[in-house]
Amino acid sequence: MADAKLPEILFQHRVSYGETDAMGVLYYAEYLHIFERARTAFTHILGLPYKEVEERGIYLPVREAQCRYRSPARYDDLLNVLCGIAGWRPASFKFTYRVTREADGVLIAEGLTSHALVNKAGKPVAVPDWFREVFAHLPGQEK
Amino acid sequence: MADAKLPEILFQHRVSYGETDAMGVLYYAEYLHIFERARTAFTHILGLPYKEVEERGIYLPVREAQCRYRSPARYDDLLNVLCGIAGWRPASFKFTYRVTREADGVLIAEGLTSHALVNKAGKPVAVPDWFREVFAHLPGQEK
Amino acid sequence: MADAKLPEILFQHRVSYGETDAMGVLYYAEYLHIFERARTAFTHILGLPYKEVEERGIYLPVREAQCRYRSPARYDDLLNVLCGIAGWRPASFKFTYRVTREADGVLIAEGLTSHALVNKAGKPVAVPDWFREVFAHLPGQEK
Amino acid sequence: MADAKLPEILFQHRVSYGETDAMGVLYYAEYLHIFERARTAFTHILGLPYKEVEERGIYLPVREAQCRYRSPARYDDLLNVLCGIAGWRPASFKFTYRVTREADGVLIAEGLTSHALVNKAGKPVAVPDWFREVFAHLPGQEK
Repeated sequence: MADAKLPEILFQHRVSYGETDAMGVLYYAEYLHIFERARTAFTHILGLPYKEVEERGIYLPVREAQCRYRSPARYDDLLNVLCGIAGWRPASFKFTYRVTREADGVLIAEGLTSHALVNKAGKPVAVPDWFREVFAHLPGQEK
Repeated sequence: MADAKLPEILFQHRVSYGETDAMGVLYYAEYLHIFERARTAFTHILGLPYKEVEERGIYLPVREAQCRYRSPARYDDLLNVLCGIAGWRPASFKFTYRVTREADGVLIAEGLTSHALVNKAGKPVAVPDWFREVFAHLPGQEK
Repeated sequence: MADAKLPEILFQHRVSYGETDAMGVLYYAEYLHIFERARTAFTHILGLPYKEVEERGIYLPVREAQCRYRSPARYDDLLNVLCGIAGWRPASFKFTYRVTREADGVLIAEGLTSHALVNKAGKPVAVPDWFREVFAHLPGQEK
Repeated sequence: MADAKLPEILFQHRVSYGETDAMGVLYYAEYLHIFERARTAFTHILGLPYKEVEERGIYLPVREAQCRYRSPARYDDLLNVLCGIAGWRPASFKFTYRVTREADGVLIAEGLTSHALVNKAGKPVAVPDWFREVFAHLPGQEK
């Protein structure tokens, strides 16, 4: 129930030629690039671009990444990436990703990235209130 | 115990500038590229390069990938990737990866990729005997 | 004068973290990926996506690429890529690219790619009339 | 004549799956990554790894890159990259690259990158004597 209020955004990405491989499909490492683009879009929609998070001295290095490849995507496919925050811990949190193809709605992949919060020196820091305040709610969404 | 006999190879990789990001570290998606390079090296050492596996009509698409990032790697770091096969299922198997830095032995990352066996049409096929025979034992290793 | 009628489109691209390097700037090879994305957008705007060009049996491999890096781009910069066709030869043609930053208009890079027209077997073919007809004029543009 | 004494090194690179595209060949942007790997190898052979050049406060951003694609390379091809320095100017110099395939000697690509010398603040600096001394001669080569 509580999860239903967690913010989630939609990011669109068109598969480029350079992202495909000789099997004719989107190469498996490229999904992590797309996830990162979705995270950046997420922070833009929240009104606090990740670039500004870094300017406030907070960095979000990835501690773990997972991806399940459900169906291949191909050159020029338009992908819909549903990106949301899945869980909070004292000094970390998770993003989840669900990738479908615009043309037919087929599930392409599901992913997860776990992020630490660290300062510029790389030392873990507790999630600041301003950070949780911004990241836990989408603009206009009831709290 | 049985696992002790599973083949495992060492692959070395030097971090390039293009693999780093603005945090000054090896970008998280690049690990999956390095894992793939280690898998190819693995098949070369087994005496059946993956290219020839494909020529025999067997493809090994990745069904799942995971990586835990333990410590950052930087430009020009020489990385040691220990790559082995972790488990067999009727129509799939797993590779595992353990990345350390040559200079100080620090653990950089641990990863896992799960692969299906499919034919050129993308249909799952059972692991052929010749495939298991080749992939389950390193040359010169007791069976 | 004649050049003034050549089609030119605007493609926007936001610099991702994965595209930057340890110098903190957009890595030099990534520009060629962005150029390719701009070419694909170009073909979409023309009404004949490159994917369909390939379905008609025409491939456009790059024969030569050039890029002049004028000023560095950074993470999260929104880039404007002006992409157009620069010249026609019997069996090849050129795309040009001009990259500026949305925020301040600064010139980031200028590039050029030269493409052959080949069939699926990789043999050069003369530019077909339907191809030149489509690629030489933007929709709604006087001919 | 003088050119004959310019240093040139051989760097080997095996084409990975992730570097190929849906045309089944090494993607055109990947050559710039390979050129960069060759440059780093070049500096290692000279005895002054580029990492240490940066530690001395000199950075070598790419000002221009060119590549002519002569023949496609494919997954698992072993490539030989001949990398050398082509020319010196007061505050810049050029690297050249010649890529052939190990198996058959076929010419795959020829490239060029032009580099400025800048300090950490990005300001151009004249080529220091120690830099030219190191980069203009291979170890053991007559001067």
